[in-house]
Amino acid sequence: MTDAPISRRALLAGAAGALGARALRLAQAQAPALPPDPTKVPGAPVSPLGQRSPFERPRRIPVGNRQGSSLTPLQELYGIVTPADLHFERHHAGVPAIDPHRYTLLIHGMVERPTVFDLEVLKRFPSVSRLHFLECSGNGFPSYRSTRPELSPQLIDGLTSTSEWTGVPVATLFREVGVKPGATWFLAEGEDAAVMARSIPIEKAWDDALIAYGQNGEALRPEQGYPARLLLPGWEGNANVKWIRRIEIADRPFMTREETSKYSDPLPDCTARLFSFVMDAKSTITFPAYPATVTDTGWWEITGIAWSGRGRISRVDVSTDGGRRWTPAELQQPVLPRCHTRFRHLWHWDGRETTLLSRAVDETGYVQPTFEQLRGARGAGTTYHFNHIRPWRVRGDGVVLFGLEA
Amino acid sequence: MTDAPISRRALLAGAAGALGARALRLAQAQAPALPPDPTKVPGAPVSPLGQRSPFERPRRIPVGNRQGSSLTPLQELYGIVTPADLHFERHHAGVPAIDPHRYTLLIHGMVERPTVFDLEVLKRFPSVSRLHFLECSGNGFPSYRSTRPELSPQLIDGLTSTSEWTGVPVATLFREVGVKPGATWFLAEGEDAAVMARSIPIEKAWDDALIAYGQNGEALRPEQGYPARLLLPGWEGNANVKWIRRIEIADRPFMTREETSKYSDPLPDCTARLFSFVMDAKSTITFPAYPATVTDTGWWEITGIAWSGRGRISRVDVSTDGGRRWTPAELQQPVLPRCHTRFRHLWHWDGRETTLLSRAVDETGYVQPTFEQLRGARGAGTTYHFNHIRPWRVRGDGVVLFGLEA
Repeated sequence: MTDAPISRRALLAGAAGALGARALRLAQAQAPALPPDPTKVPGAPVSPLGQRSPFERPRRIPVGNRQGSSLTPLQELYGIVTPADLHFERHHAGVPAIDPHRYTLLIHGMVERPTVFDLEVLKRFPSVSRLHFLECSGNGFPSYRSTRPELSPQLIDGLTSTSEWTGVPVATLFREVGVKPGATWFLAEGEDAAVMARSIPIEKAWDDALIAYGQNGEALRPEQGYPARLLLPGWEGNANVKWIRRIEIADRPFMTREETSKYSDPLPDCTARLFSFVMDAKSTITFPAYPATVTDTGWWEITGIAWSGRGRISRVDVSTDGGRRWTPAELQQPVLPRCHTRFRHLWHWDGRETTLLSRAVDETGYVQPTFEQLRGARGAGTTYHFNHIRPWRVRGDGVVLFGLEA
Repeated sequence: MTDAPISRRALLAGAAGALGARALRLAQAQAPALPPDPTKVPGAPVSPLGQRSPFERPRRIPVGNRQGSSLTPLQELYGIVTPADLHFERHHAGVPAIDPHRYTLLIHGMVERPTVFDLEVLKRFPSVSRLHFLECSGNGFPSYRSTRPELSPQLIDGLTSTSEWTGVPVATLFREVGVKPGATWFLAEGEDAAVMARSIPIEKAWDDALIAYGQNGEALRPEQGYPARLLLPGWEGNANVKWIRRIEIADRPFMTREETSKYSDPLPDCTARLFSFVMDAKSTITFPAYPATVTDTGWWEITGIAWSGRGRISRVDVSTDGGRRWTPAELQQPVLPRCHTRFRHLWHWDGRETTLLSRAVDETGYVQPTFEQLRGARGAGTTYHFNHIRPWRVRGDGVVLFGLEA
């Protein structure tokens, strides 16, 4: 019944009539002394740079230090754009301080004209801007190997964010240097203290890879690779080498530490999946989800994000009864390829305990797997690519908890 | 010849071979002492909130104080998203400080159920997110009535920005309160010290108006109406009442100061255009434009933004010879209704003085007018809606100047 058609009046009466409605997402920060009536006092003057309201304190959650990460507050965000200062971080030796006037990108190896590009030259090439998600391949780890009920979307899946990226197609640069016949891979190397290096199939360069220098309309933020990074739309974050300083074109992968010891997926048969670049389709509900509570019965808007490294999200099914029935959610337009897609689904809560689930389907027909399906395919010991369905358990008292015990 | 087909090789050789290329948009700020080799020292740790690189200092230009505005640095931005702290401001009595816990929106007048909504209740209603431009109706004034050559896109047109807005449709709230038959207008009133008030035709509420509380994924910024504002996609900024506290539904416009003395357009015949809400199609080149210089001959990417309050941009024509020939520019996808659209056009500069122009066409067939056409229709004394074509004069020495003398 909860997913049956409803009258708009019934919906709206329920929403506006709520006495104790959805908890405001406001920080506990000490607010300034405010005028009782803002219309009676002059307001603040215009300024060169805006600031958030003192009542709003969205924050990433840092984990670790230089060899660490910080998590985007997914449950506090609307729409699909992630503000640049809340975009997740993941570094292997901290954020390097790079002078853009001294920055260079060398492209060499199997090329006709080894070339050093400075930032001015990179910016002079024809450019493109695209909205894409970026996700760490280890995102979701707490939902797979060390779950507990008190996990928020931020703690589980906060290593994914969406930005409008601007840069020059790698294909343009490769045509400029003249790639030699037989070239099949390229090495991307960063200018951080980890000298992060990954091997990338050259097809991705001809397809949609960018050297990105812009993020959400302005220069890249330092934590996202300032002044320039590799962007491989839909591929695991680690391969999108930040602070990129060198590309070497070759006829084989380089088998770096980060694609042999790390960023490979051990399988139950004791082999390992190597070069598992693509982020498979995934979704998660961001409301209601821990630590939010459902404060009364009636109509609620379930919302969340879905994304796929293989293209567009074609459907997100939502279940409000633990998986017995599934209903297609509304997808916020525009639905863009390799980009977060916001979904919404109206739900009438009758006050009884239940479990909310979301299941993404992408344009290739790929369906987000269950936990059991994923563990069957990858085994219990895998460390990356946790795209299984996330259940959110709503208790009778309205408390919402992460619903997997693994 | 400059717009003739070119070989990709010729283009790229020109770009990478440039000795003095497009000037880096880097601030003159004193940079920190940086390590000569960032790979030899640990980088900065992860953090709760990101910061810009010290080399990047994009800033709005404030004009006035409380009764003032601040201008978005259009010539420094990529793509279409405007970072929230660079979104233009326009206030009539400063930015009020509003406690979201005490915030309310009253809807009354010709309604069945006068209702006070608090923020929790507004957020509980079904929501939508959409990318839209917002533009002050006075944007472009310096290009019409007091031009000079040393004007940047920011100084001319910096009162337009694009955000992903999230909120509840006004139609939803109007169905909730029950609009009475015969209602044709509503008053929107702000909680600032100007008590900004505008009359809006009720059709806009049934169409696409929002009470917006989200901007680029997070809460509205204070300068853009925190905690909630009216958003009227495609309509002049002033009518998008910020800090909205009251809506009164009626069968006539209220004829407030801001739609009689101000925000109306005097015409040559001594009448005035009232309630000229829609922002007509417009475009401007953001590169090359003052203060950028074209530092050598060869291929350059002309880029800019186009937008229309009537829907999607269907074409942007670019002329690189002062208007003799026009060529359709490439439009960055996705092209969204009532949203900035990025255009790009490759141009081969032969080193001779010329003038660059852009001309937007929207999906209704409306064509951005020339200065002479606009002045003919509105007269020399008008104060709003300056959407005429902007010319950029490139001198033989590569200096780029605003090209209208009015």
